[in-house]
Amino acid sequence: MSILAVGTVAFDSIETPFGSAERVLGGSGSYISLASRYFTDDVRLVGVVGNDFPDEYRQTLLDGGVDLEGLETNEEGKTFFWHGRYHYDMNERDTLETQLNVLEGFEPEIPDSYDDSEIICLGNLDPKVQRDVLRQVDDPEFVIADTMNFWIENTPDSLRKTLQLVDCLVINDSEARELADEPNLVTAADIIRDMGPETLIIKKGEHGALLFTDSQVFSAPAYPLEDIQDPTGAGDAFAGGLAGHLVRAKSFDQESLRRAVVYGSVMASFVVEAFGPNRLLNLDPIDISERAQSFRDLAAIPTLVPVGKQPA
Amino acid sequence: MSILAVGTVAFDSIETPFGSAERVLGGSGSYISLASRYFTDDVRLVGVVGNDFPDEYRQTLLDGGVDLEGLETNEEGKTFFWHGRYHYDMNERDTLETQLNVLEGFEPEIPDSYDDSEIICLGNLDPKVQRDVLRQVDDPEFVIADTMNFWIENTPDSLRKTLQLVDCLVINDSEARELADEPNLVTAADIIRDMGPETLIIKKGEHGALLFTDSQVFSAPAYPLEDIQDPTGAGDAFAGGLAGHLVRAKSFDQESLRRAVVYGSVMASFVVEAFGPNRLLNLDPIDISERAQSFRDLAAIPTLVPVGKQPA
Repeated sequence: MSILAVGTVAFDSIETPFGSAERVLGGSGSYISLASRYFTDDVRLVGVVGNDFPDEYRQTLLDGGVDLEGLETNEEGKTFFWHGRYHYDMNERDTLETQLNVLEGFEPEIPDSYDDSEIICLGNLDPKVQRDVLRQVDDPEFVIADTMNFWIENTPDSLRKTLQLVDCLVINDSEARELADEPNLVTAADIIRDMGPETLIIKKGEHGALLFTDSQVFSAPAYPLEDIQDPTGAGDAFAGGLAGHLVRAKSFDQESLRRAVVYGSVMASFVVEAFGPNRLLNLDPIDISERAQSFRDLAAIPTLVPVGKQPA
Repeated sequence: MSILAVGTVAFDSIETPFGSAERVLGGSGSYISLASRYFTDDVRLVGVVGNDFPDEYRQTLLDGGVDLEGLETNEEGKTFFWHGRYHYDMNERDTLETQLNVLEGFEPEIPDSYDDSEIICLGNLDPKVQRDVLRQVDDPEFVIADTMNFWIENTPDSLRKTLQLVDCLVINDSEARELADEPNLVTAADIIRDMGPETLIIKKGEHGALLFTDSQVFSAPAYPLEDIQDPTGAGDAFAGGLAGHLVRAKSFDQESLRRAVVYGSVMASFVVEAFGPNRLLNLDPIDISERAQSFRDLAAIPTLVPVGKQPA
């Protein structure tokens, strides 16, 4: 099975209390594809870069086994650029500069060879662009989408239309509260699932993630990391690990979704250990498997004996 | 085995966005004992009340099977009083009034019949008072203690002395960061455990709890509640459920501690469903067992197949 990753491909300049990096490879499309490629050989990337995008970064993606037929180069402009600074509390960040550049007016064209993509992973983009992608692919098996407060606030009607086409929405807790206009996350999840996505994943950063389906709630822990270098891309790497496990499992049942949330959390936990996408460039699959197992150990509740009876 | 609960016994006046309650039975000692008594017949309460403490509240505790020989009545003064208001985001609250009353200068005297108490659960009190209690009991098997930012800031040396006598410290995340002077919770846990407590539990409210021991970290989820009426006493009910399971298990190994954190979380999840301690007054043990099982279901990660191999 194949993954079609759609998102930004960007230059990121990042400052954290522990260091900085200038114009590193960034963007949701890059992180999604570099994370999911550990799970399948067939990752396809749709996005746009400008005339300043270096061969070196293109090669980084190719070395990762990412198919770049769908990566358009717009020779008329520059690559999307983001400059941000994280606070000492890394849950907080300031965007210092955003240059949309070639992203402005981007109309993705999906290569014919991508028509049969089975899992579509839509990074945070204009909801209209997300719909344009879905219109161009044949009946995918599973559509995952991200969004952000900008679209929730500025294009709510367009976002609603996209949500009706999405199987699994992946957003963070503040976005969920804003989208549902409801502070309680459990109630918010019901409201959002009524908008279309049967499956909702709410990311809570250092507090893990919640998976809401029709029948169950699953609470995934966060990996207890002592050394967080740079949170950039963690959410997109989560989506990549999620899509990656699902394409490997060829199943979207409760157990597969729970495992997929764990692998998403695993990939996010790796990304934050180094600046930019560095940690995703040469992970050993054994490390991924071991960390996934340590999530399982971290959350394991031993069998319980009913209250009123003496435990053995 | 027996539990000795030490803490405040109070009048609480509570306002939340969903209602209010005036001068209800409150205090850490009340919540700890009313939660732990579901797990053992032998719960002993040490605290102090004033001349205004009604028989009705005394009877509430007695009906719960709580031994009140250690509850001193100071006829010279009034019972400790707290008045607080929760915000719409119930993680935030303002203390509108605190009257220490008989709590000021309280020197607990432990009845002889309590000397053999096996688990000591010290609610949030002056660390010197916590030490005075420990000096009066014979070699308890396990000492659990709570504290708060007031003692961390105002009596740091006294708190350090108490921590050296404590087996398990139970605090919330902001207290842990303040006590360790370190924002990263994993690093903070190492620092705090070096101060004395072999076991550290960090409560994260709606995000669950973390258990740190020498060898492992355990992440317990929070129960996804749609209807939270009043968070008052949740932390103390957590300590009560924790102590309750440990006294029932007669064991302090990793598995017992993990289960105890789950039962603590269960009792906290019940308390917040009603104002004051109401929900703790007539719980069915079957409800406790069922909710504990639902914590297990909520956090269950299915078996994992290493990355690079095809899942069955």
